[in-house]
Amino acid sequence: MPANREIENLIELMAKLPGLGPRSARRAVLHLIRKRALLLTPLADAMQEVAATARECLNCGNVATSDICDICQDNRRANGELCVVEDVADLWAMERARVFKGRYHVLGGTLSALDAVGPEELRIPKLLDRIPGEHITEVILALNATVEGQTTAHYIADQLEGQVKLTSLAQGVPIGGELDYLDDGTISAALRARKEV
Amino acid sequence: MPANREIENLIELMAKLPGLGPRSARRAVLHLIRKRALLLTPLADAMQEVAATARECLNCGNVATSDICDICQDNRRANGELCVVEDVADLWAMERARVFKGRYHVLGGTLSALDAVGPEELRIPKLLDRIPGEHITEVILALNATVEGQTTAHYIADQLEGQVKLTSLAQGVPIGGELDYLDDGTISAALRARKEV
Repeated sequence: MPANREIENLIELMAKLPGLGPRSARRAVLHLIRKRALLLTPLADAMQEVAATARECLNCGNVATSDICDICQDNRRANGELCVVEDVADLWAMERARVFKGRYHVLGGTLSALDAVGPEELRIPKLLDRIPGEHITEVILALNATVEGQTTAHYIADQLEGQVKLTSLAQGVPIGGELDYLDDGTISAALRARKEV
Repeated sequence: MPANREIENLIELMAKLPGLGPRSARRAVLHLIRKRALLLTPLADAMQEVAATARECLNCGNVATSDICDICQDNRRANGELCVVEDVADLWAMERARVFKGRYHVLGGTLSALDAVGPEELRIPKLLDRIPGEHITEVILALNATVEGQTTAHYIADQLEGQVKLTSLAQGVPIGGELDYLDDGTISAALRARKEV
């Protein structure tokens, strides 16, 4: 044990963060100790605050500091559009793009027979409730373009058929993407969905 | 701002850690919120504790939770050997190897005319005091094999000449190293220091 118990304990906990291993956790802890006033104390306070206040929005599953998240509380976002995403990271990614003005529904994962994840585990019943409850006219299925994401999207589409307009994100060449580096699936999807110039 | 103020604040602070950027900080914060009881609260507590107790050992410059670090307090380590390292990360690396049984002296950097880092800034006067004060018989200069590290090592060697035995870490092929991947400098150092089998 190179350092003291308290410091070793902090290193061990930091090493559990995604993206950090034992070596980078040690580097991070040394950095924190050197910048105690500027970083360590504010970070500890921020963690205490989030630990005390963070919870799941009861309506959409977003991370919130109150029972209903800011987006669900914002009446300007009740425009009849509902974007279904797999998890909160996807919601944040959509928000960063600043183009979607409706509300979200966070599933919290994808359907998986192997891991025994059924519709009940995924907040799907709540989604079905929200359609009439919030006068939703369009559901945008923004699930990941993986097999699990697409299976889940199909299941939800089956459940909602005839009730609302159902759309999904366009598939194609990403902005700035080079054909040479794209996989075959993306290229064929982009070709099938080609548009007149 | 995709999330709440408290959560955004935590993400911003996490992104200041070495090895984490904005994207990995967001991932880490989501992970922390999901593992609140297991990780977020213990981590916040550990940070508070380190922020309250961590300081520099007045004797050697190691990170400690008391004025004098565990190693300097341990009389079994007063064996006359003193290992001079650039910073605490190097001390921890030496300790992990579990082979050095003496004490350390952490310089806190290297001499640099450009950055106006002179001997006073590097705890070198304290090092010179420790030689007679702790009956040091051998000083091991375990500075990094960089130009700055070696310049600093030369300066210290000049100061201590004739007072103690001066040694430095052996240079050569690292254990498990493949010649093909080693730089020219390492190979020539290893060749010059070759040993009879």
